[in-house]
Amino acid sequence: MANTAQVLYDFTAEPGNNELTVREGETVTITNQGVGGGWIEAQNSRGEVGLVPEDYIELPGGGGNVGHVAAPVAAHAPDLSFFDAFAAPANNTTQNQASNGKDPWSVWNQDTTGGSSNNWAAQPEGTITGKSAAPDPWGSTAQSHPQAYQGPGAEEDEWDDEWDDVKSNSESGDGGAIQRGGATGSSMKISLNKFPGFSKSGPELFLLCKQPPKGKEKITIYMGEVGPVWSYPEAQLDCVVADPKKGTKMYGLKSYIEYHVIPNTTNRPVNHRYKHFDWLYERLLDKFGSAIPIPSLPDKQVTGRFEEEFIKMRMERLQGWMTRMCRHPVVSNSDVFQLFLTYKDEKDWKTGKRKAEKDEDVGVMIFSSIEPEAPDLDPIEVEQKCDQFSRFTKAMDDGVKDLLTVGQEHWKRCTGPLPKEYQRIGKAFQNLSSVFTSSGYQGEATLTDAMTSAGKTYEEIAQMVAEQPRKDLHFLMENNNEYKGLLGCFPDTIGVHKAAIEKVKEGDRLVAASKITPQDKVTMAKRVSTMSYALQAEMNHFHSNRIYDYNRVMQLYLEEQVKFYETIAEKLKQAHSQFTTM
Amino acid sequence: MANTAQVLYDFTAEPGNNELTVREGETVTITNQGVGGGWIEAQNSRGEVGLVPEDYIELPGGGGNVGHVAAPVAAHAPDLSFFDAFAAPANNTTQNQASNGKDPWSVWNQDTTGGSSNNWAAQPEGTITGKSAAPDPWGSTAQSHPQAYQGPGAEEDEWDDEWDDVKSNSESGDGGAIQRGGATGSSMKISLNKFPGFSKSGPELFLLCKQPPKGKEKITIYMGEVGPVWSYPEAQLDCVVADPKKGTKMYGLKSYIEYHVIPNTTNRPVNHRYKHFDWLYERLLDKFGSAIPIPSLPDKQVTGRFEEEFIKMRMERLQGWMTRMCRHPVVSNSDVFQLFLTYKDEKDWKTGKRKAEKDEDVGVMIFSSIEPEAPDLDPIEVEQKCDQFSRFTKAMDDGVKDLLTVGQEHWKRCTGPLPKEYQRIGKAFQNLSSVFTSSGYQGEATLTDAMTSAGKTYEEIAQMVAEQPRKDLHFLMENNNEYKGLLGCFPDTIGVHKAAIEKVKEGDRLVAASKITPQDKVTMAKRVSTMSYALQAEMNHFHSNRIYDYNRVMQLYLEEQVKFYETIAEKLKQAHSQFTTM
Repeated sequence: MANTAQVLYDFTAEPGNNELTVREGETVTITNQGVGGGWIEAQNSRGEVGLVPEDYIELPGGGGNVGHVAAPVAAHAPDLSFFDAFAAPANNTTQNQASNGKDPWSVWNQDTTGGSSNNWAAQPEGTITGKSAAPDPWGSTAQSHPQAYQGPGAEEDEWDDEWDDVKSNSESGDGGAIQRGGATGSSMKISLNKFPGFSKSGPELFLLCKQPPKGKEKITIYMGEVGPVWSYPEAQLDCVVADPKKGTKMYGLKSYIEYHVIPNTTNRPVNHRYKHFDWLYERLLDKFGSAIPIPSLPDKQVTGRFEEEFIKMRMERLQGWMTRMCRHPVVSNSDVFQLFLTYKDEKDWKTGKRKAEKDEDVGVMIFSSIEPEAPDLDPIEVEQKCDQFSRFTKAMDDGVKDLLTVGQEHWKRCTGPLPKEYQRIGKAFQNLSSVFTSSGYQGEATLTDAMTSAGKTYEEIAQMVAEQPRKDLHFLMENNNEYKGLLGCFPDTIGVHKAAIEKVKEGDRLVAASKITPQDKVTMAKRVSTMSYALQAEMNHFHSNRIYDYNRVMQLYLEEQVKFYETIAEKLKQAHSQFTTM
Repeated sequence: MANTAQVLYDFTAEPGNNELTVREGETVTITNQGVGGGWIEAQNSRGEVGLVPEDYIELPGGGGNVGHVAAPVAAHAPDLSFFDAFAAPANNTTQNQASNGKDPWSVWNQDTTGGSSNNWAAQPEGTITGKSAAPDPWGSTAQSHPQAYQGPGAEEDEWDDEWDDVKSNSESGDGGAIQRGGATGSSMKISLNKFPGFSKSGPELFLLCKQPPKGKEKITIYMGEVGPVWSYPEAQLDCVVADPKKGTKMYGLKSYIEYHVIPNTTNRPVNHRYKHFDWLYERLLDKFGSAIPIPSLPDKQVTGRFEEEFIKMRMERLQGWMTRMCRHPVVSNSDVFQLFLTYKDEKDWKTGKRKAEKDEDVGVMIFSSIEPEAPDLDPIEVEQKCDQFSRFTKAMDDGVKDLLTVGQEHWKRCTGPLPKEYQRIGKAFQNLSSVFTSSGYQGEATLTDAMTSAGKTYEEIAQMVAEQPRKDLHFLMENNNEYKGLLGCFPDTIGVHKAAIEKVKEGDRLVAASKITPQDKVTMAKRVSTMSYALQAEMNHFHSNRIYDYNRVMQLYLEEQVKFYETIAEKLKQAHSQFTTM
């Protein structure tokens, strides 16, 4: 009896992952409670043995579940958050099932009508929605990362424990639907407490704080040719994400992917798993999110049919994300980012990690580190700038999504019906040629050879057409997808400014009601001016990157398109030359 | 009361053609019985006046219809056959309605599952089906030309009377549905009597005739390098069909198109309307159809949305048909064909016409004119040759139809969704470019100009894609369509041979039964040998033309395709060059 347990929620095993499918109310026999990582080994009534999440199982008569009682790793992350790892992506997996495994863009289409576009439409001016409206560039739900960060003060040995890698790794498999009930409701606890400076208190925390704390990190804004600009380093930081390697844990039952991240400053690789990138993302969002749009990481739900394809795609997107972060002078110069790129050993990492998690200079307080070297702005000018950027980013968001939609359709056509048609043309030529060969008529070998050759050429063209999108459209799509992600962050970033502007507008009333002093009002105006400089510096950063990126990607696209059409023309010329001129 | 008449069948007026829509049972007032050409002018109860086919109307109390009573042109073609002109195309018009006016190939697709393909599948060996299984290369019903020829001994003033021009001309209008009831059943009378030598008596007419009549026209077959060949003239006949001109008749109420036909022998244009081509077709079919596949004329139902487009297309196809006839040494050398190309005046034409219609050397008797300069063939060899050609033409028929189907789909894609997509890509680029222009950021004019230009380039590509099929695929389709027509004639031509072979196989039995003499049997074998030489000569003619035609059309297709892709590459190169290299 001590070995049997009641199943609390349905759990569907993923094939090839040593898991066991169980149903709510089913009784199973515990065969190994010491597996670790939030799993136990159990046997069902049919004698099948496999792993089941420990929180899905309740010992008979006991109030707690197996995990709470028996989890051997005492300093584990809370079990709730562990299962959050499964809760959110479950929806995404369903999405993936509908999409063609060969069409990585199919998920994009869906979120043009939902996801981040709601960010633009539904958000009231001046409200800051925090995590629930967090940047959502990849069309995933906003809740997709609750498992990545357990909040400040969580235990220290996350280095080797369960986060997302198990999940993401298993997702790269068959993409079978995962239905894990019961864990969904528990993610709220985390979300509520996540943004101490950002979501709860609003910009007045900065606008009215007595004495802005002077942190060690100072962020300077200069007046450049284009207006306010961040202070850029002389040498631009860059890094390479490479060498994905599979690691295993839990006695080889679970595996994960570890990447080398090699910064150009040290040229020394450090190891990171996806969960570490996600940790970094959460840190950057906390610290800079009010002033700088921090795009989401590439989503976990992006699956390829083959593991290799999936790993390659994720690495490419992690690379893109890291490159963008490296390019940002404020982000790349931050302690937490430098730690991520250059930690010396596990101890160094853990110390830095703890420190970063305890950083209080987060949320709107980031503005207290910013020092614009320019005269204060008039609040009306501040508002105008803010509105202008709001309009621009909204318009660009629309334009980018439009291009993504068109691109996705073009992708589908180029990889689906179009090459099939060229292939059929090729086959029809070859077929006719082989009929001709059977004529028994003398001296038509030149024609039939030439027709066969023309037919084969069209089959080659079919293949070229099908492969071309990966050579050009892919990069155009990736670039626009990145921008969609970035642009999805702007409503929040701009929202902070709008809320601050509203607060300043209330100044006279607040003074009259003696809620603030006249001096407070002056301070507020000065500080909203700082915020405006920050927004302008960020917009100028965005613009300059945008010009660079679109120039680069359009060139690449057109270059590859030219090559593509030239190659086809060349092949057809070759085919043409085989016919006899009469 | 004498002026009113009962409507016998529904008749739907074609717009712009001075016709009046009437319904079965309706009473109309006859306003002019003297219009001629099978039409009367009538007024309906709403006061509308217009032309109605005279056979559709019955005078009250009278047994005959208006036409029989009142048709002013006494020597007219029988009314039944006149209305046959409408009966058959009615179906085709319905087909046209479903097809896109801009897609001249749409009708082709339909007949790959019906039409001439039935010719191959349904015909039992050795049966000759005559008119009802006549060549049907354009997917029309086999009954589509009953109006063209009224049978030998018909009146002489057809030169100016009603045939098909009214019909074909009016068809070039809106393509509205024509529903002319009651006339369908009457075409049988004509069909039954049309092929005196061909359909009723079978090859034994030739095989067993006492003394083959020696006509003036002798057809020689030589042994060439490739086997038996027709005797080719030193200079190849050719002609140009050009200068379509609109003529009118019936007091301007009806109009027709007249073409110049200019042979390279005289370089002197003669005038012909479609109905004259159709008359020629019927004569050639009668005379040579047993030995030589005579492809149908371009169908009357081919409509373009604009009259000009329709006229151009028909002229192009008449040209193709004439070129093919000119190229055939036996056809082009015939009296009737020479008459068509070189008649001096109306009197000359009429005399020649009457003579041609009285020609008795038609049907299988054409073989009596053929003189192979080679030893007689063994009946087994004859049968082998016949089977070989049968297999080849069937296989080629399949291959050609396959290519036509693929080509039609490609045509649709190239003129429909594909250019639309390129246009959307172009618009998306331009749209993003104009958003960028609104950024207020300095120095991005180079990017936005380049992006606009790239966008316009894709719009140009869209147009190129949409227009390209008319430059290359069109000719590939026309060529294959012509061959489909030719190949559709082979079952009949080969059927004559198969029937002859069967007859020869019965030789011993017929001798034993004293139905034929032993000498007859020898004669039959000799004559079937002649038929085999004719078939071989024709196949060799077909092969040599086929090699020429496919060589030519494939070259043209590939040449244009090369130009197309090169132009696109060049345009994109231009667009690419406008981006700044960074």
